[in-house]
Amino acid sequence: MKEGKGRARLTRRTLLDELTAGLVALIEEGGYQIGDRLPSMSALAAHFGVATPTLREAARRLEAAGTITFRHGSGIFVTGDSRRLVIANPARTELGDQTTLDVLDTRLLIEPELARRAAERATHEQLAAIGGLLDEARQAIEAADEQSLTPLNMRFHVAIARAAGNQVLTEALQSVVELYEPQQSVIGQIYADPWRDHNEHRDIYDALVRKDATAAHDLMRRHLEGVLAVVSATLRREKERD
Amino acid sequence: MKEGKGRARLTRRTLLDELTAGLVALIEEGGYQIGDRLPSMSALAAHFGVATPTLREAARRLEAAGTITFRHGSGIFVTGDSRRLVIANPARTELGDQTTLDVLDTRLLIEPELARRAAERATHEQLAAIGGLLDEARQAIEAADEQSLTPLNMRFHVAIARAAGNQVLTEALQSVVELYEPQQSVIGQIYADPWRDHNEHRDIYDALVRKDATAAHDLMRRHLEGVLAVVSATLRREKERD
Repeated sequence: MKEGKGRARLTRRTLLDELTAGLVALIEEGGYQIGDRLPSMSALAAHFGVATPTLREAARRLEAAGTITFRHGSGIFVTGDSRRLVIANPARTELGDQTTLDVLDTRLLIEPELARRAAERATHEQLAAIGGLLDEARQAIEAADEQSLTPLNMRFHVAIARAAGNQVLTEALQSVVELYEPQQSVIGQIYADPWRDHNEHRDIYDALVRKDATAAHDLMRRHLEGVLAVVSATLRREKERD
Repeated sequence: MKEGKGRARLTRRTLLDELTAGLVALIEEGGYQIGDRLPSMSALAAHFGVATPTLREAARRLEAAGTITFRHGSGIFVTGDSRRLVIANPARTELGDQTTLDVLDTRLLIEPELARRAAERATHEQLAAIGGLLDEARQAIEAADEQSLTPLNMRFHVAIARAAGNQVLTEALQSVVELYEPQQSVIGQIYADPWRDHNEHRDIYDALVRKDATAAHDLMRRHLEGVLAVVSATLRREKERD
């Protein structure tokens, strides 16, 4: 009896919840990939048997979560992973200096352990994907393509998190990294040495490949401590100049 | 020159970004608290000098982030912290068993360190707030008020995170705890011993008060390992019964 009540509470959902889940299922089962256009709002409303404004409400939640984007005059496009549990607040405002340091402190707490686990568990496919990101990053450095480099470096860190095998932890880290990406891009362009960064990433990757969990952990820690040192010095210098 | 370019990119924002930030500022500077009603959409649109549908777009982002809620016929209410950086996806679907275990694994990685830092840094006010949550939780147990108990226990964990002084880490943990709350409520009601939980919380609090960082760390770790054991056993039992 008591258990029945609990279960009922767990699964109680509103029409809007049902519609949101329905849209997510449609994106996945329909095989829609990031970049694909979805059917029109009115076609989707007819599909789910609801009024268009009601469907639009559900779609707005997915929009705010970054899963879909409305493009004026051209339709609704898939722009993010529909199964994300933890996300960066799409309505967030800019980060202050302390928040930038908090982001790096958070990464220092989480990522060395993720690197350790990735060394123990990464599949051949996951290692190949991580190695592929490194190759792309090297090409971006050689082409002085700074705009591509930062996202590739961020994806390197998220790919290691994913290989550690905990979806929630991966998404928590991914959200934190997403917060930090605009800052990272600016700091990277002004102060960091892209080859040093790249070589440290390469060392971490090599530790993953030889399944050396301790080295992967320690190299990730030292890498992030180095990033934190550069960022702290940058923020101090900017403050002194103001 | 290069720095100027980077800075420009960092601060480039769309009208929608400006409006979203404007609404957040209005909520904060207007002193609106959670539960308060905001001015109407048309009054806000006039205030910002934009068309109502444009303002509505910005408001939808805040709605999806949980900051405000549209209540049919009665207006728009403040329902969450407008400054959150990391949030649980408001469009998320239900958690599977593996995700529930991933949540606890994530908490085990983060929370012992947060408890250690809270023991070192918590202010008198923060300790008083944490103690107040424990008192409320005791009253809820004595009144067999299960519906109040779970949120109070979750707030206890988030309050310790906050006392550790890293906003990003606090919000990452808060998002993870929010994901887990429906499950926690059901599992707590069926299987857990509320007094055991409460006494473990009390022990952690005592360690914070006497600024014993190592004890706070270790007690938090043991507490979460105990929760993980109960949850794992519950999920195993349910699977066997299916």
